[in-house]
Amino acid sequence: MSSFRITLAYDGTDFVGWQRQASGVSIQGLLEDVLRELDDRYVVVTGAGRTDAGVHALGQVAGFSLERPIAPEVLSRALNARLPPEVRVLSAAEAPQAFNPRFDSYSKTYRYRIRNAEVVSPFERRYSWHVSGILDLDAMAAAARLLEGHHDFAAFQAAGSNAQMTKREMFSSRLRKLSADLSVPRGDDLIIYEITGNGFLRYMVRRIVGTLVEIGRGRYPSDRITDVLASGDRGLAGPTAPPEGLFLVSVTYAR
Amino acid sequence: MSSFRITLAYDGTDFVGWQRQASGVSIQGLLEDVLRELDDRYVVVTGAGRTDAGVHALGQVAGFSLERPIAPEVLSRALNARLPPEVRVLSAAEAPQAFNPRFDSYSKTYRYRIRNAEVVSPFERRYSWHVSGILDLDAMAAAARLLEGHHDFAAFQAAGSNAQMTKREMFSSRLRKLSADLSVPRGDDLIIYEITGNGFLRYMVRRIVGTLVEIGRGRYPSDRITDVLASGDRGLAGPTAPPEGLFLVSVTYAR
Repeated sequence: MSSFRITLAYDGTDFVGWQRQASGVSIQGLLEDVLRELDDRYVVVTGAGRTDAGVHALGQVAGFSLERPIAPEVLSRALNARLPPEVRVLSAAEAPQAFNPRFDSYSKTYRYRIRNAEVVSPFERRYSWHVSGILDLDAMAAAARLLEGHHDFAAFQAAGSNAQMTKREMFSSRLRKLSADLSVPRGDDLIIYEITGNGFLRYMVRRIVGTLVEIGRGRYPSDRITDVLASGDRGLAGPTAPPEGLFLVSVTYAR
Repeated sequence: MSSFRITLAYDGTDFVGWQRQASGVSIQGLLEDVLRELDDRYVVVTGAGRTDAGVHALGQVAGFSLERPIAPEVLSRALNARLPPEVRVLSAAEAPQAFNPRFDSYSKTYRYRIRNAEVVSPFERRYSWHVSGILDLDAMAAAARLLEGHHDFAAFQAAGSNAQMTKREMFSSRLRKLSADLSVPRGDDLIIYEITGNGFLRYMVRRIVGTLVEIGRGRYPSDRITDVLASGDRGLAGPTAPPEGLFLVSVTYAR
């Protein structure tokens, strides 16, 4: 048996999310189906982050073990030859036998893209949250910074969740507006929020972004973030931002 | 009768191009169908640039006349309410009666996006040409500059075309690599070619890009561009780059 670690990018638009579900196509399910073919047995794939339906990944990390010997480069090509073009293996490497992409991770970085413009862009509708109207970016950026450090994020978890351990450390939480840039079909009007931390609760990033947008609209003051964190009350946080703007950017490991 | 000028963005992936065809959905056809409903008569729409199938627009300009009086803002909203989300009207304004978006234009700018990486990006496959292998960007950038100025572009036109007037002036022709940038899902590995001129022949930008990539691969030297221009021989230019990387960025008018 050899263990492997792969890094994946996927366009989450048409999937039910990372995790295998009773119906619909999941990234985990796609990988397990292809690996079962390659290894001629059922292979369990674990992921570093369980991205929800419609959420994208630029650098998801997954792990699994195979009985048949295979070189990582060959594995990577074999997977890409069988996976749909919406899912690509960016790299593959051998991993220690006990490698667990989720529990071994040191940090994860998520990015959320907001397009603040009057008209929806044909090029951004799958990859950003379209927010019209004026947003106070200084207030949003100031609020974003308040999330850095050790906090109890209970107030930002999904309505249905009841995680017991809700304290996490955020190493960085920054919001900035992009100036017009050639790199995107239309790069003006884009607001980028990026957060790096040692762990995330379900819907946490999307609830943070929903709260930041309410602050940008002037409905809450910037320091509302501090009150929401202190309260642990989900009723005080803003709405959950839609999945299409969210990207799992990268996962780091201490090794 | 009032004349209007509208600026449009569209994702060209699923269309047969700007121009109405015997079969398939065209941008011109979509607009004419919606305007026929609004004005209760057949309305002819002309465009500044006839983008081919799969080519995108960030700032296409179109013109038409309506019998019914309508404020430009109302027109813009009415069009966006009826057009598919892949096509968006960015702005609308009244235009002089004789306005012709194509013949009145002073310059057009096209952008071509190349993604130079080993693995195809799930986020870029509709919006860039995936080119693997090493490219000599300095040679490509030097070659791009040789297209600036007055030239006869006969060698770069489509195989079937026989335009008589093939002299054009290029005001700018530049190629650059983007450094990693937050503005795109994955901004590294992107090469942006941008060209502004007073007119373009059919397939001209895509044949220029095909030639630049051959230069980048070391198959031709940089100054091959000068020889191709001087020869007027289509056999000397490179292959036609695929449509998905091409964007009509903007059209300018003298007034």
